[in-house]
Amino acid sequence: MKIYQSTDQSNQLNKIISRSNLPTEQVEKVVKEIIQDVKENGDLAVSNYTKKFDGTELMNFEVSEEEFEQAFQETNQNVIDALLVAKENIERFHIKQKLTGYKIEETDQFIQQIVRPIQTVGLYIPGGKAAYPSTVLMNAIPAIIAGVKDVIMITPPNKEGKINNSLLVAAKISGVNRVFKVGGAQGVAALAYGTSQIPKVDKIVGPGNMYVATAKRLVSGIVGIDMIAGPTEVVIVADETANPRFIAADLMAQAEHDEMASSVVLTNSLSLAEQIQSEISMLIDEQPKKVIIEKAFDQYGAIILTDKMDDAIEIVNKMAPEHVEVMTENPIEMAEKITNAGAIFIGEYTPESVGDYYAGTNHTLPTSGTARFASSLSVLDFLKKTSVVYFSKQSLSKAKETIETLANEEGLYAHARSVSIRFEEGN
Amino acid sequence: MKIYQSTDQSNQLNKIISRSNLPTEQVEKVVKEIIQDVKENGDLAVSNYTKKFDGTELMNFEVSEEEFEQAFQETNQNVIDALLVAKENIERFHIKQKLTGYKIEETDQFIQQIVRPIQTVGLYIPGGKAAYPSTVLMNAIPAIIAGVKDVIMITPPNKEGKINNSLLVAAKISGVNRVFKVGGAQGVAALAYGTSQIPKVDKIVGPGNMYVATAKRLVSGIVGIDMIAGPTEVVIVADETANPRFIAADLMAQAEHDEMASSVVLTNSLSLAEQIQSEISMLIDEQPKKVIIEKAFDQYGAIILTDKMDDAIEIVNKMAPEHVEVMTENPIEMAEKITNAGAIFIGEYTPESVGDYYAGTNHTLPTSGTARFASSLSVLDFLKKTSVVYFSKQSLSKAKETIETLANEEGLYAHARSVSIRFEEGN
Repeated sequence: MKIYQSTDQSNQLNKIISRSNLPTEQVEKVVKEIIQDVKENGDLAVSNYTKKFDGTELMNFEVSEEEFEQAFQETNQNVIDALLVAKENIERFHIKQKLTGYKIEETDQFIQQIVRPIQTVGLYIPGGKAAYPSTVLMNAIPAIIAGVKDVIMITPPNKEGKINNSLLVAAKISGVNRVFKVGGAQGVAALAYGTSQIPKVDKIVGPGNMYVATAKRLVSGIVGIDMIAGPTEVVIVADETANPRFIAADLMAQAEHDEMASSVVLTNSLSLAEQIQSEISMLIDEQPKKVIIEKAFDQYGAIILTDKMDDAIEIVNKMAPEHVEVMTENPIEMAEKITNAGAIFIGEYTPESVGDYYAGTNHTLPTSGTARFASSLSVLDFLKKTSVVYFSKQSLSKAKETIETLANEEGLYAHARSVSIRFEEGN
Repeated sequence: MKIYQSTDQSNQLNKIISRSNLPTEQVEKVVKEIIQDVKENGDLAVSNYTKKFDGTELMNFEVSEEEFEQAFQETNQNVIDALLVAKENIERFHIKQKLTGYKIEETDQFIQQIVRPIQTVGLYIPGGKAAYPSTVLMNAIPAIIAGVKDVIMITPPNKEGKINNSLLVAAKISGVNRVFKVGGAQGVAALAYGTSQIPKVDKIVGPGNMYVATAKRLVSGIVGIDMIAGPTEVVIVADETANPRFIAADLMAQAEHDEMASSVVLTNSLSLAEQIQSEISMLIDEQPKKVIIEKAFDQYGAIILTDKMDDAIEIVNKMAPEHVEVMTENPIEMAEKITNAGAIFIGEYTPESVGDYYAGTNHTLPTSGTARFASSLSVLDFLKKTSVVYFSKQSLSKAKETIETLANEEGLYAHARSVSIRFEEGN
C-alpha cells in the first residue's frame, strides 16, 4: 500500500479521497427492460430471468416450511447460537430508536404527529458467493422493531434452486414472514409491482450489485427505498502509539469484501506508515482472498501522511467515510472531533468486525461520502408519520386573518375563500 | 366534477386513484447538460442559464443586505405579522421533533448513537408566478431547529434581476443565512457542486418544476435530497352530514394550484355528491383561477360513491394521498382509521389552508401515493446519526467467538483474523 503526503494533488489520491457513487448508465437500459417485463408478465418473467441469471428453473418461488426446517438441521449449532447473540445485541441497540408521536392540544383544537410502521417491507439479500446472514439480521430486525407487519425477503437461488441455509436461519430468527427465491433486478421489480406469487411492498431495503442498485433507483417513487450503497470503505486514524499489525489486519478485512473496497490510513507518523506496509507484506500471504485484497489496495488503498493529527481529522470529515477506526493516544477525545462518518470504532480493541457481527449497531451504513447527510439503517427507516390537525369554528375564526393574508399574498384566492366561506351568513 | 361509482373500472378513475410520480425522461437530457456545464464552468454557466431562462443578466447572485432591507420596507406590515405568527406555530410543532442520541454503557465498552445536524443545507424556493413565502418557512424552520449552521436559499430572479419581497422577508424571518438569485436545474447544480459564488451544500430540499425535480434526482448521491414532490392532491371523506358548500370551496382551493392537482371526494351519499356539483357551479365563476380549476377538475377531479364509509376509508388508504379532509358525523374516530396519508384535517372547520398557513404542521408532504412509506418534511430530515463503538481488550475477548463464527460462516476470513490477531502472543 502506497504512502502519500496529504498535500499530494495526484489524481490517484484524489480518486481515493473523493469517492462518489453515481449510478452507472450502462446497465440502466437492461434493467429498465427487466422491470417492464416483470411489470407486464409477472411470475412468468421472473421465472425466465431466474433461469437466465441464476441458472435454475423455478415455478414456485416461496421457501417452504420444510426448507426452513432443513436449513436449521443443516446449520451448525454454533452458527445458530452466534446469530442469536448478534440478534439480541442488535435488538438492544435498535429498540432505543423507536419514535412516538405527539399531540399539542388547546381548547377546541389540536395538532398531532402520528407515527406508524410502514405496512409491507421487502428485504433484498444478496446470495451466491456473498451470502451474509448478518445482513438479514441488520435489515430485518429494525423493521420488526418498527412494527412492520409483513417483512418479505427475497434472495437469489443457486443452480439447484436452493437458498443458503444460514440466510434462511437468519430470516427465521429475525422474524421475517416470507422468503422468496428471486434476486436481481427481476426481484426488485417483483417487489415494486407485485406478481401472483410475490407481494407488492411499500419499501425495499438491502444491498445488492449494480443491477439491484439500479433497479432500486428506478422503482424509487413507486416504492420507498433505502440508500443506494456503494463499495465499502474504512479510514483508520492512527498516531505513533498505534499497533501497525492490528491496522494491517483491519485494512485487509475491509479489502477482502470487494476489489472496489477502500482501505485508508491517516497518520502523522512516517514510522507507523512504514511499519504498516511491512506488516501487510508479512500477513497478506495467509489471506484466502489475497488477490482481491491486493487489487483493492492497489486501486483504493492509501496511507496518507499529515503534519498534525488535526489535519487527519479534517480529511476524515471531508471524506465522510462509512467506517472510521481511531487508534490514537486518546481515541475517545479524538473521535469526538469526527463529525462526518457512518460509524466510528474507538481504540485498539474495536476492529470494525465488532460492528459487523457483535456490538449491535447497524452495519448498513452510508458510503461514498454520503455520511455528510445520511445515516445508518435504523428503526426510523421503517416508520412513517402523519400530521393531524383539528380546528373548531372558534379556532378557525382566530386563524382566519393570518390565513387570508398569506393566501392572498401568494395569489391563492381559493385558499382564502375556503376559510371566508365558512363564516358567511347561513353557514 | 364527475360522479363515479367506486366499483368503476374506467381508465379515467384509475388514473385519478393510482397517481404515480415517475420522472420524465424527456427533460433528463437537457438537465444533464446543464448540470455538466455548471460543474465545469461554475458561475459563468449559471449566469448564462439565468439570462436564457430568467431573462436577466446577473454578475453577482447573492442578495445584499440593502435588498433585504428594501424588501421589508416594501412589504405590508400585515404580511410580515402573518409570517411571524405562522413561524411561531411552525416552531412550536417542529421543536418536538428534535432527536437526541443515546449511549449504552457497560464495563469497558459502550455503543452509542450521536445525532448531529447536517452542516450545510440548500433550499430551493420557486419564484415567479408561484412565489410562496410560506414555503420558505416550511423548509427553513425545521433546518434551523435541527441546528444546521449554513442554510442557503436559492430562488430564480425576475426579468429585473429581483426576488419577490415576501420571499426575502420570509427568509430573514426564518433565519436563512444567505440567499442567491438563481433557479432551475442550474441552481440545483450550483448547490450540488459549488461555484465561486454559491457554496456547495450537503443536502438540497424544496419544491420545484420538472427541471428542478429532475436535477435533484440526478445529483442525489452527490448531495442528499428530500422527496421529489408530484402535483398536489386532496381527498375529502364526507358523509351526508357534511356541508357541500365547504367541500366545494376546499376542492377548488386544491385545484387552483395546478392543472395537474387532484381533488377527490369519497362519500356514501349521492345527495351530497349532487349538492357538491351544484355548489361548484355556483362558486366557480368568482374564482380568479377558474380556468386552472376547471382543467384540474376535468383531469384529476372525481366524486366517488361508495356503499359504506368504510369502503371510502379503504380507498383512501390505497391512494395514500397528500391531504385528507374528514367531514363526517364522528370525524375524529373516522380519521383514526386512515393509516396512509401525509396530513389529515378533521371536521368542518379545518380546511387544508389551516395547515398551509397557520396550524404549524409542515405543508411539505408526500404526494402520489408515497405516504405509504414517506412523511412530511421534519427536523429529522436535517439531522444525521453516527454510530460509535468502543470495546476494551476484555470486551473483545468475550465477543471473539461470536465474531469469528459469523465471519467464517460468511467466508470473510480477514474479518475473523482482525480479531484473532489481537490475541496473539506478543500483542
